[in-house]
Amino acid sequence: MRAGAREGSAAGAPASPDLSRLGLNQATTRHWSVAEAVAGCARADIRWIGLWRDKVAAQGVSASARALRETGVRCSSLCRGGMFTASSAAERAARIDDNRRAIDECAELGSDTLVLVCGGIPQGGDLAGARAMVWDGIAAIAPYARERGVRLGIEPLHPMFCADRSVVTTLGQALSAAERLNRPFPAGEPAVGVIVDAYHVWWDPAVEADIARAGRSIVGFHVSDWITPLPAVLEGRGMMGDGWISLRALRQAVDRAGYDGPIECEIFNRDLWSEPGDAVLGLMKARYLATV
Amino acid sequence: MRAGAREGSAAGAPASPDLSRLGLNQATTRHWSVAEAVAGCARADIRWIGLWRDKVAAQGVSASARALRETGVRCSSLCRGGMFTASSAAERAARIDDNRRAIDECAELGSDTLVLVCGGIPQGGDLAGARAMVWDGIAAIAPYARERGVRLGIEPLHPMFCADRSVVTTLGQALSAAERLNRPFPAGEPAVGVIVDAYHVWWDPAVEADIARAGRSIVGFHVSDWITPLPAVLEGRGMMGDGWISLRALRQAVDRAGYDGPIECEIFNRDLWSEPGDAVLGLMKARYLATV
Repeated sequence: MRAGAREGSAAGAPASPDLSRLGLNQATTRHWSVAEAVAGCARADIRWIGLWRDKVAAQGVSASARALRETGVRCSSLCRGGMFTASSAAERAARIDDNRRAIDECAELGSDTLVLVCGGIPQGGDLAGARAMVWDGIAAIAPYARERGVRLGIEPLHPMFCADRSVVTTLGQALSAAERLNRPFPAGEPAVGVIVDAYHVWWDPAVEADIARAGRSIVGFHVSDWITPLPAVLEGRGMMGDGWISLRALRQAVDRAGYDGPIECEIFNRDLWSEPGDAVLGLMKARYLATV
Repeated sequence: MRAGAREGSAAGAPASPDLSRLGLNQATTRHWSVAEAVAGCARADIRWIGLWRDKVAAQGVSASARALRETGVRCSSLCRGGMFTASSAAERAARIDDNRRAIDECAELGSDTLVLVCGGIPQGGDLAGARAMVWDGIAAIAPYARERGVRLGIEPLHPMFCADRSVVTTLGQALSAAERLNRPFPAGEPAVGVIVDAYHVWWDPAVEADIARAGRSIVGFHVSDWITPLPAVLEGRGMMGDGWISLRALRQAVDRAGYDGPIECEIFNRDLWSEPGDAVLGLMKARYLATV
């Protein structure tokens, strides 16, 4: 259903979530540095931000952490760890080392969640082998993350990214993996959880059942929309309400599962990137209230 | 794994399927009419062809059936019925009528299988509602199809087509629907089955289990490949061996499930469409033997 139809606030319509849960994922305002994005969130009274490692590296980890402290904006997650698949054992080991650095960055930024985009099929490999590399990679970093108070969030990506970005393609698959990977640890707060990104999972006939099954393993919830015709595979996401995803139904399912954390708005879209950041944040807040 | 690595015929490597099962889906040689495509198959000793309704309409149904009879090439399936989702009841009824015509065309062409591409989300609708329209539509045409000896093949499409082409996105979902829809009929040959198209289902962690579960409900198997970067959402499929799908493993799973029917090569690709049809068929045969 397109936005016009969905934004009407019929009597008895379910309430929007509290604005205090809204977060800006930095990919939505790609042309802003960390300092600019954090300042933008503070101006717009947005309490959470999901940061990207390349932007954090450009700003400096300490300077990024300082910007957060000075404004009171909190880092909801760091994007991204993962990319465990590679043709050689040496390269896979290097990826694991890089994930350990990402965990350290998370801790320094005060974020409790590292988002994992797990990697596609390496040259010469196949799908089953790539999936095994992913599980091995997560198992290798989970104890390190747990010691530092950082949760790993496996983010299943849309199946159109299976070959080149993530062989983890469904929430059910991510959840089963998380359950296996948590077994070595004492019960309680899981070391490995899942990220529910509406854009990646909305099409899945099992998504509501898998969200319910996930329960407290959900460590992040991302929103955007699926617009048609798809402008581009990588940079074609839409603003909430401009597309076809029943975001409110998904958000309510995530709430029912027990997730009460930040809701990050993550939109890769060239048109949006050409808009002034403050205007993007204003639109994002309005659409969050109307459609999430 | 890319073709170079996979085409090697290691000792003990599993055998390719018999050439007598290879079929040309007409979408692969889009610039050929039905008569041209049937003649091309006859020249190349390809025994099966999957026809498209727009091409059959342009040729005439009777003329198409005659071309098949005269060459001995057999119609493995007709593409496509479905598209059950629409905003109004009148439009949905019109779609059902059109599906009945497609069933009649199947019977006249001597094909026992109508491929169903079920439809996306209609304007003003939502995903759950669209799925209900699909099941209602198939239920409405199933008795008519069964009386005419035509099986309905629900084809789950890749989730990237969920909004605009098919709200049926996984083999497991299609199979559960087929099981429900077959309940009114006596046991035996199912009225409603599923089409396994490698391009649409290869990414699914459950695909091999669902193929095994499908068993004799599989009424078609389509092959092509997923190439990266994806050239286009609609017309970006690759020739078998040029991409990332483990086609042989999927074909063996389909064989183990008991499917021994035609294997259609269906490739939507602009580059391929600019090649002479006979060359495309030659390449298709070679790649079928090497990779399927």
